[in-house]
Amino acid sequence: MTHPLFAKHEDTLKHALAAIETRGYWSPFAEMPSPKVYGESSNADGEAAFKARLNHTFELDQPSTGDTVGAEQSPYGFALGIRYPKPDAGALIAAATAAQRGWCTAGPEAWAGVSLEILARLNRASFEIAYSVMHTTGQAFMMAFQAGGPHAQDRALEAVAYAWAELRRVPAEAHWEKPQGKNPPLAMKKRFTIAPRGIGLVLGCCTFPTWNGYPGLFADLATGNAVIVKPHPGAILPLAITVRIARDVLREAGFDPNVVTLLATDPNDGALVQDLALRPEIKLIDFTGSTQNGNWLERHAHQAQVFTEKAGVNQIVIDSVDDLKAAARNIAFSLALYSGQMCTAPQNIYVPRNGISTSAGHASFDEVARALGEAVEKLVGDPARAVEVLGAIQNDGVARRIDEARPLGQILVDSKSIDHPAFPGARVHTPLVLKLDAATDSAKFSGEWFGPISFVIATESTEQSLDLAGSTAAAHGALTLSIYSTDETIIEAAHEAAIRGGVALSINLTGGVFVNQSAAFSDFHGTGANPAANAALTDSAFVANRFRVIQSRVHVAPLAEAAQVGQTA
Amino acid sequence: MTHPLFAKHEDTLKHALAAIETRGYWSPFAEMPSPKVYGESSNADGEAAFKARLNHTFELDQPSTGDTVGAEQSPYGFALGIRYPKPDAGALIAAATAAQRGWCTAGPEAWAGVSLEILARLNRASFEIAYSVMHTTGQAFMMAFQAGGPHAQDRALEAVAYAWAELRRVPAEAHWEKPQGKNPPLAMKKRFTIAPRGIGLVLGCCTFPTWNGYPGLFADLATGNAVIVKPHPGAILPLAITVRIARDVLREAGFDPNVVTLLATDPNDGALVQDLALRPEIKLIDFTGSTQNGNWLERHAHQAQVFTEKAGVNQIVIDSVDDLKAAARNIAFSLALYSGQMCTAPQNIYVPRNGISTSAGHASFDEVARALGEAVEKLVGDPARAVEVLGAIQNDGVARRIDEARPLGQILVDSKSIDHPAFPGARVHTPLVLKLDAATDSAKFSGEWFGPISFVIATESTEQSLDLAGSTAAAHGALTLSIYSTDETIIEAAHEAAIRGGVALSINLTGGVFVNQSAAFSDFHGTGANPAANAALTDSAFVANRFRVIQSRVHVAPLAEAAQVGQTA
Repeated sequence: MTHPLFAKHEDTLKHALAAIETRGYWSPFAEMPSPKVYGESSNADGEAAFKARLNHTFELDQPSTGDTVGAEQSPYGFALGIRYPKPDAGALIAAATAAQRGWCTAGPEAWAGVSLEILARLNRASFEIAYSVMHTTGQAFMMAFQAGGPHAQDRALEAVAYAWAELRRVPAEAHWEKPQGKNPPLAMKKRFTIAPRGIGLVLGCCTFPTWNGYPGLFADLATGNAVIVKPHPGAILPLAITVRIARDVLREAGFDPNVVTLLATDPNDGALVQDLALRPEIKLIDFTGSTQNGNWLERHAHQAQVFTEKAGVNQIVIDSVDDLKAAARNIAFSLALYSGQMCTAPQNIYVPRNGISTSAGHASFDEVARALGEAVEKLVGDPARAVEVLGAIQNDGVARRIDEARPLGQILVDSKSIDHPAFPGARVHTPLVLKLDAATDSAKFSGEWFGPISFVIATESTEQSLDLAGSTAAAHGALTLSIYSTDETIIEAAHEAAIRGGVALSINLTGGVFVNQSAAFSDFHGTGANPAANAALTDSAFVANRFRVIQSRVHVAPLAEAAQVGQTA
Repeated sequence: MTHPLFAKHEDTLKHALAAIETRGYWSPFAEMPSPKVYGESSNADGEAAFKARLNHTFELDQPSTGDTVGAEQSPYGFALGIRYPKPDAGALIAAATAAQRGWCTAGPEAWAGVSLEILARLNRASFEIAYSVMHTTGQAFMMAFQAGGPHAQDRALEAVAYAWAELRRVPAEAHWEKPQGKNPPLAMKKRFTIAPRGIGLVLGCCTFPTWNGYPGLFADLATGNAVIVKPHPGAILPLAITVRIARDVLREAGFDPNVVTLLATDPNDGALVQDLALRPEIKLIDFTGSTQNGNWLERHAHQAQVFTEKAGVNQIVIDSVDDLKAAARNIAFSLALYSGQMCTAPQNIYVPRNGISTSAGHASFDEVARALGEAVEKLVGDPARAVEVLGAIQNDGVARRIDEARPLGQILVDSKSIDHPAFPGARVHTPLVLKLDAATDSAKFSGEWFGPISFVIATESTEQSLDLAGSTAAAHGALTLSIYSTDETIIEAAHEAAIRGGVALSINLTGGVFVNQSAAFSDFHGTGANPAANAALTDSAFVANRFRVIQSRVHVAPLAEAAQVGQTA
């Protein structure tokens, strides 16, 4: 019998399965915060729900020590004052282990159905989640809504679809019948049982807690695992709301809600996380964060399948352009969007020192640099408009990094602190753009400078630019690479550099698509082919090892013989 | 344009794809060494080809130091005297890297087509390979033919089919078109390029060099990787013949034959293998062998995807039987087959100390033990017949282990050395069966005693037997578990124990199927869910991470707009 939640959402799942095969555009979750879609009062209700959580303890009926933790600060300049139940890691693992028993036998349809119902409820909570994402990550509202809500839900649904696609390839039963010449055939009935791995641990980040956290969470759930969600201490609320909704759905569907639990922590929780990550019960780890922590997990958590997204150096190669202003506008937006705090934001912009050709004639290196600088300055010139693009700086470390970077080279655009019209205490800094030279400065630009920091780098030639792009991505990781060229041969060479660097390539973006954007069901986010990530969102490899198959076999009467007997009778 | 080798073998591939979905019986490679199938002179030709290789240097036109290596000994009592070109590991990696450039851009159809052509040629060489397997592993001829030839080819084809199934899920191109309300849609053309990992390293074992080596080799090839095949120093020849055939096919198809190379070594090559396994160019490792070496690879070769099959403790739980003699016959054959040197051979046989019920009434523990012992003794009583089941002991270490095991408990069947009628120097030992007690001897039977060594273990109850079976498999690894019971409740409990232990279950085998056997396209060999293996042969997880996907995207004219323009015109 089909699980009722599976039946309810089967159509969505079918569309998702079709989408991941063709990789065209598709989404079931409206990305515009439109009252027509989400309800007239949805924005006000979401904001009110968010505000009601401030300065209160977040209620969650999971095992707890009785103490509370939490010290989130809005990058818009106020303390959230939210306290979360403090869990004992051992008790949480015990509760997850107990909950997993019933969950793991429920089977693929229940796992998918419950996952899809959780997603439907998360979608309805998109406004509340948007405000919680905004005031933990510093994203501007529109991005917090889109990336934190529908786009994160898309990525989750994509993971569920991939999981389902793998699970359905394993038949529940098989009849195996091997001819034996003149003797009766050997016949066996085989049963194949999906055995989830156990407990998954999702380690969230402070910039995209839902977008980066959901794929692992939902890939685990959809393959029958229990999940402990450990948010970054700076961005707990969006995942706390998520866990609460997941627990509601699980409970209503008759499962132990401890299938999904929250491990909220105070800041500086590194030792706790390392202990937890090595627990034998933790069989899956999904991590987004620093290279140092990601590498540590990959090298030490041998008991688990470890999926990581880490630091990288995203790059743009400018060879030639039709319309320099259009290219500069597009690049400037990518640099400014959420103050460069996207894992996909560009950092290194390579331009030949002899300049480039444009449809308006030759442009010198300085003219290209100036066009980029002017585009950035224009974008952030009006504070009221700027903050809707920039958002706020998530933490002081990022703000300090701007000051550390400033002396690295000649300043093309200086970073300025600006006042947010609505939030007086907001930590808002405009982008810093520096000029560097590939001949002398490679040590400066070969590592990640996370935040609104970018470099326009003079190279010998586009050939050197592509060489650098490929080798930097391969050695230091990258999630994005962008090429601007009017020459098909160069674009083909960029393809090859992208393959050498194991990085996704965007070509001549001058319109409404930005290199930072990665569309679920179509764009693979990360490749797993360079140090920025050991996995891609989402492909088969991301889900296929989250479960195993246990089979049994027993002799049965051969069908061929039965048929023969039938004929004789 | 379809690659000609893909077109040639497409039908076989389609059948294989259907087989892995339904998991019924299927094989394109005849398992009987029949002259009708393989040709009247095929056996004689194969034997002659094998003999012609003895005491000669094996010719292989790959980079070599000029020296030769090799010290294989037939377990049937003679030195093979075959020398192989000694490669320098660095030169081999350089050659593989160079060869991979052309191979990795050839694309999925070429990879599949070439792989399938290699398999077709290997099938034609099945007799030569059978003799080479026989005289390196010690398998009797029939097993050497079947497991070393067609069954290994089946497993290889299965890996190619899984690889193809994953590769074809990634479209080469996509059109992505996102509506923008009243504005024209955003439209992009996306290109998805399969990026193979690089170089795979296949580390062979000395008991099933082809059966265990082919899945990794062909999974790598079919996903566009180059492969260095490093046979166990005791069983080089079967893989050397394989590599030679692969190189012939590659060369004929216009590829650099160094896509597949052989790294033959002298005995005691551990340090060399460890160096090689950590080389940054080695991105995939497939290993069959000891737990110690497998764990070392899993914990140190971080630059590679590591697939291991290691030691385990296979178990049989006897609860109740219809026909004790039939069960004992089946079990005895499993114990004797290739002298227990199969990774799937049972070791621990749990029987309640108060005996079991049979259709002929109650049988005491001692009666069950005696029935098993008699069945073993009957099977090996006639040396001429016995050697066709036992084969020979692969190496002295296994033979010595029999002596080490003898004092562990009361002897139910003693191991005897017997003379091989055809090979006077053959190392042939019949099975040793000991009686142990679960209450006092668990330290003795919780590890693997590889070879013809098994224990009939008295337990409190079937409940304890199943408990032991599940926990031993989970803690120490296991590839097989077998239950004998006439009680459906017990069989269901065995299912649960199998799931706890992450091990495949066989139920009431009394006929022509043995627990040691694992049929390609139907049985998953290993589960990846206990310490005996971190992967299964073959499933999606075995292939999906052997390649990555690199995408590009560029704006194109929206189709919707084009259609509109069309309407207006």
